[in-house]
Amino acid sequence: MTPHTDDKTPVTLLGLGAMGTALARAWLAAGHSATVWNRTPARADALAAEGARTADSAAAAVAAGPLVVVCLLDDASVGEVLADADLAGKDVVNLTTCTPGQARTRAAWARERGARYLDGGIMAVPPMIGQPEAGGYVFYSGSCELFDRHREVLAVPAGTAYAGADPGSAALHDVALLSAMYGMFAGVTHAFALIRREDVDPAEFAGLLADWLTAMIPMVHGVAAELGVGGESEEDASSLAMQVAGTPTFLDTARQQGVSPELLTPYFELMRRCLAERTGEGAPRSMVDLLLG
Amino acid sequence: MTPHTDDKTPVTLLGLGAMGTALARAWLAAGHSATVWNRTPARADALAAEGARTADSAAAAVAAGPLVVVCLLDDASVGEVLADADLAGKDVVNLTTCTPGQARTRAAWARERGARYLDGGIMAVPPMIGQPEAGGYVFYSGSCELFDRHREVLAVPAGTAYAGADPGSAALHDVALLSAMYGMFAGVTHAFALIRREDVDPAEFAGLLADWLTAMIPMVHGVAAELGVGGESEEDASSLAMQVAGTPTFLDTARQQGVSPELLTPYFELMRRCLAERTGEGAPRSMVDLLLG
Ligand SMILES: NC(=O)c1ccc[n+]([C@@H]2O[C@H](COP(=O)([O-])OP(=O)(O)OC[C@H]3O[C@@H](n4cnc5c(N)ncnc54)[C@H](OP(=O)(O)O)[C@@H]3O)[C@@H](O)[C@H]2O)c1
Ligand SMILES: NC(=O)c1ccc[n+]([C@@H]2O[C@H](COP(=O)([O-])OP(=O)(O)OC[C@H]3O[C@@H](n4cnc5c(N)ncnc54)[C@H](OP(=O)(O)O)[C@@H]3O)[C@@H](O)[C@H]2O)c1
Repeated sequence: MTPHTDDKTPVTLLGLGAMGTALARAWLAAGHSATVWNRTPARADALAAEGARTADSAAAAVAAGPLVVVCLLDDASVGEVLADADLAGKDVVNLTTCTPGQARTRAAWARERGARYLDGGIMAVPPMIGQPEAGGYVFYSGSCELFDRHREVLAVPAGTAYAGADPGSAALHDVALLSAMYGMFAGVTHAFALIRREDVDPAEFAGLLADWLTAMIPMVHGVAAELGVGGESEEDASSLAMQVAGTPTFLDTARQQGVSPELLTPYFELMRRCLAERTGEGAPRSMVDLLLG
Repeated sequence: MTPHTDDKTPVTLLGLGAMGTALARAWLAAGHSATVWNRTPARADALAAEGARTADSAAAAVAAGPLVVVCLLDDASVGEVLADADLAGKDVVNLTTCTPGQARTRAAWARERGARYLDGGIMAVPPMIGQPEAGGYVFYSGSCELFDRHREVLAVPAGTAYAGADPGSAALHDVALLSAMYGMFAGVTHAFALIRREDVDPAEFAGLLADWLTAMIPMVHGVAAELGVGGESEEDASSLAMQVAGTPTFLDTARQQGVSPELLTPYFELMRRCLAERTGEGAPRSMVDLLLG
C-alpha cells in the first residue's frame, strides 16, 4: 500500500457495501486518507485494518473532510443517511444508482444545504474498481466545478466521463446502457433455453454467441444514423418486412424446443407495428420513436 | 472474374433474392459454372450477363448439375419449387431459413426422393457473402458425406461450420444466435428511446453503447458455466437480489422519459420469478430453465 501523503485530498465514504468497499480500497491503495462509515459498523473493520479511519456517525464522517462520496443502496437511503449531516461547503459525489429525476431532486436538495453536488453512475462491477485496464468507468453529471476540482481523485477507482451539467444526465446514461445490456441478457437467456435440451455443449455455444453478438454490435451505429437523419431508407424498410415475415420461424422454433417466447415477443410485436405504420398512411416512425408512444 | 474451369463443381442455384444473388456471384467470381433459376425470371438477367446459365424451370436447373443450392423465402416455397424436380442422386443444400422441425422433415422428404440433404443457416447478410474477411459463415447440418464432398465449394461464399448429422441442428443454431441478437436490438431500441428527447448526440451515444455491450458480452460464458454445473453460486444469488431490487429504477426512468417499458418488463419479471423460487422452497432453477416452464 502506498503510504498516504498530505497533498492528496482526504476522502469520506458513506456506504461500505460491495461497491463502497471496493471504492474505499482503491483510494487507500492510491495513498488517500479515507474516513468511512457504514450503517452496520462491522463492515468497516477490514478497511480500518487497511488504514481507513472509521466515524461513529454519518454526520461525523461528513465533518471529517471536504469531499464526501456516497455509495448506498438507493436514493431513499441517501436521504436518511445525510439527514443530520452539515453539508455546508462540502463537495458531495453521489454514486448511488438512481433515476434522472431523483438525481435532479437530490442535487437541488444538496445545493439548498450549501453543498456542491455531482451525481455518478458506475459502469463497472466491484472487481473492476481500481483496475484501470478493466475498462470500468463512471458517468458524472452536475457541478462542473466540483468535477474539475476533484478530477484526479475521481479517476482513482475507475475512468471518468463527464455527461453534462444536468445532474440527471449521468443516471440517464447509466440506466440507458444497462437497459441495453438487459435486453442482450434476455436474448442470451432465450438462446441458451433453445439449446438446453439438445446435445449442444453450452461452453462451445457461448463462444458462438459471443462472436455473433460482437459481429452485430456495430448495428447500433445504424440506429443512430437513422435517428440522426430522421427517417428510414428504402432498404431498411424492405429489411423490416423480411424480418417481420421471419418471426414465425422464431416463434415456431421456440415452441418446438419447449421455450416460452415471452422475452422475444414484445420486440417482434414492435417490428410488426412499425411495418404496419409504414405500409399505412401518415408519417412512418422508427422503432425507437414507436416506444415513445 | 476468374474464368470457370472444368475441375470446379458446377453449382445450380434456385432463388435469386438478395441472398441467392450474392451466393451466385460468389461462385461465379470463384470460377464455378452456375445454372440459376428464379420464379421471377428478370432477376436472373444481371447474373446471366456475368456468366451464369439460366434455366427455364426449377426442374431443368436441378437436372443441369449434381449440386443444387436452394435459397428461397421459406420452407413452403422450397416444397413448391422442388415439387416437379427429379432429385435422385442429387446433393441438395438448402440455405433457406427454417425451423429445426422443418429442416428435419425436409431432409426426410429429400432422402425419400433419392437425394443427399444438407441444411444450412446463414450467419451473414448479403454484403458479407464472398468477403471472407467480413466474418460471415454458414451452419451446416445433415449429410456429413455431402458436407465433406463439397466442403471447398461451400467455403466459397462464406465460412462453414458443421453442426452435426441432425438436419435440424443448423437451423437451431441459426435461430438461437439470431434470437439473442433480437434481444440485444430490443435493449438497444429501449436505450435510444430513453435519450431520444434529451440533448444527447445519438452517434456519440452509439459509441458508448457499443463499448458497453462489448464489455458485457463475456457474461455469456458465465451463463454457460452456470448451466454446466447445474446450479447457482451464492454470489449469483445475491447479485440477482440486487438486480431485482434495482428494477424500479429502470421502470421509473422509462416512465420519466416517456418510454414504454414493454421491451424490458418480461426479463425483469423473469428475474423476479427466479428470485422468488430461490428464496422459496424446492430446487431453484436458472433463468434459462425457467423459460422451459
Ligand atoms: N455492485 C455492483 O455491481 C454495482 C455496480 C454499479 C453500481 N452499483 C451501485 O452502487 C450502490 C451500492 O451498491 P453495492 O453493490 O455496494 O450494494 P450492497 O452491497 O447491497 O450495499 C448496500 C449499502 O447500502 C447500505 N444501506 C442500505 N440501506 C440503507 C439505509 N436505509 N441506511 C443506511 N445505509 C443503508 C448498506 O448498509 P448495511 O451494510 O448496513 O446494510 C450497504 O452499505 C447501489 O446504488 C448500486 O446500484 C453497484
Ligand atoms: N437477406 C439476408 O440478410 C439473409 C440473411 C440470412 C439468411 N437469409 C435467408 O435467405 C433466404 C432468402 O433470403 P433473401 O434475402 O434472398 O430473400 P428475398 O430477397 O426476399 O428473396 C426471396 C426469394 O424467394 C423466392 N420466392 C418466394 N416465394 C416463392 C415461391 N412461392 N416460389 C418460388 N420462389 C419464391 C423469390 O422469388 P421472386 O423473385 O419470384 O419473388 C426470391 O427469389 C431466406 O430464407 C432468408 O431468411 C437471408
